[in-house]
Amino acid sequence: MIRALLFDVFGTLVDWRSGIAREARTILEPSGIAIDWSAFADAWRGEYQPSMEEVRAGRIPFSKLDVLHRRNLDRVLERFGLARVDAATRAELNLAWHRLDPWPDVVPGLHKLRERFRLAPCSNGNISLMADLARRNDFRWDAIVGAELARDYKPKPSVYLAAAAAFDCAPGEAMMVAAHSGDLAAAAAAGLRTAFIARPDEAGPGTGERKASVPVDVSANGLVELAQRLEAA
Amino acid sequence: MIRALLFDVFGTLVDWRSGIAREARTILEPSGIAIDWSAFADAWRGEYQPSMEEVRAGRIPFSKLDVLHRRNLDRVLERFGLARVDAATRAELNLAWHRLDPWPDVVPGLHKLRERFRLAPCSNGNISLMADLARRNDFRWDAIVGAELARDYKPKPSVYLAAAAAFDCAPGEAMMVAAHSGDLAAAAAAGLRTAFIARPDEAGPGTGERKASVPVDVSANGLVELAQRLEAA
Repeated sequence: MIRALLFDVFGTLVDWRSGIAREARTILEPSGIAIDWSAFADAWRGEYQPSMEEVRAGRIPFSKLDVLHRRNLDRVLERFGLARVDAATRAELNLAWHRLDPWPDVVPGLHKLRERFRLAPCSNGNISLMADLARRNDFRWDAIVGAELARDYKPKPSVYLAAAAAFDCAPGEAMMVAAHSGDLAAAAAAGLRTAFIARPDEAGPGTGERKASVPVDVSANGLVELAQRLEAA
Repeated sequence: MIRALLFDVFGTLVDWRSGIAREARTILEPSGIAIDWSAFADAWRGEYQPSMEEVRAGRIPFSKLDVLHRRNLDRVLERFGLARVDAATRAELNLAWHRLDPWPDVVPGLHKLRERFRLAPCSNGNISLMADLARRNDFRWDAIVGAELARDYKPKPSVYLAAAAAFDCAPGEAMMVAAHSGDLAAAAAAGLRTAFIARPDEAGPGTGERKASVPVDVSANGLVELAQRLEAA
């Protein structure tokens, strides 16, 4: 029996690409900066996995994602010829990740799923980032679990196991919900149930996964459909 | 400027004594058990600090409060001559702490405070216990911080500091709200701001603190009054 649903957030619940492009433009364009804002979002997101790998591999101590994002931002601004952007603007821009919009099915889907399950983000994003997204978008979480609780990054098994344990769940009583097969494969290897959510346009048309490339317990096109499938199960 | 309010829970927000007495009676009385239910609640609560001290002193690894409560329950049942209570009943009874009622000012007070501040429990209770109390009583938290995040127990400074850091607050940007001077003294020593809430009848008439015995930033008779005082400040 599944008791808790644990959600990946970036890409699965919120549209990071258009949100980061919008925020970057809003913050930088008034200074006369004109770049390809979507390419900027992609470049920043491109530094995400390598920066977490430093922590996962034990080369640097655990640092929350806001800190990694900030270091990655310096690198990306340099690459876009924007080394002149000052520290205060960089700090403000770094909070762009706290101001992303959900895909349209997310709020009604979570509302429905909340009737039967404990709900929590199990993201690599830090607690304040998850709390800000929740306030902005009216996500009603039972708790915020994930990287900052486990002090390591997905797909390390400890992150999934700490998340399930926080809800007093055996791994098989918790279900990881994500748009990324790698995340789900790691959760399944740790003993969790898995639900794949198709976000085929995650980083622009046709860039996301249409189907899971690994075995999963449930697949759905969004959270409203996930609620229906779990209801039927 | 205060950005986050961190709440003690047992005694400050919820009435543990009458809740534990009620739950124990509901669960045990059908088996013909007749004891002083309030005395049973007091005895169970009496084991709380000594059991956490084992963790704080490093004599046992961090164990969440549900685990400590369960061990303490065995000891207390023995003392009340109830060694015959079976394991399934003990497990059910242990969840009594997840089913406590708030003092009457708590829900309206939190609702008002939520307009201006990030809100989180900073309790020695574990995440699932806090999540169950929140569901039951409609506490809308931004996150659940406290002992399970810090993997140690209050009044250790790391618990307060991890709670503030989770909200990206310097210690002085977070305020600990509690009905116990010891909790507030430890939070202040860690650099947090402090608010004392009077719960003079916490463990029965006249048993609680009427006034803080240490310097605090604010004192109030309940959370509605706290909201008014912080509004005025």
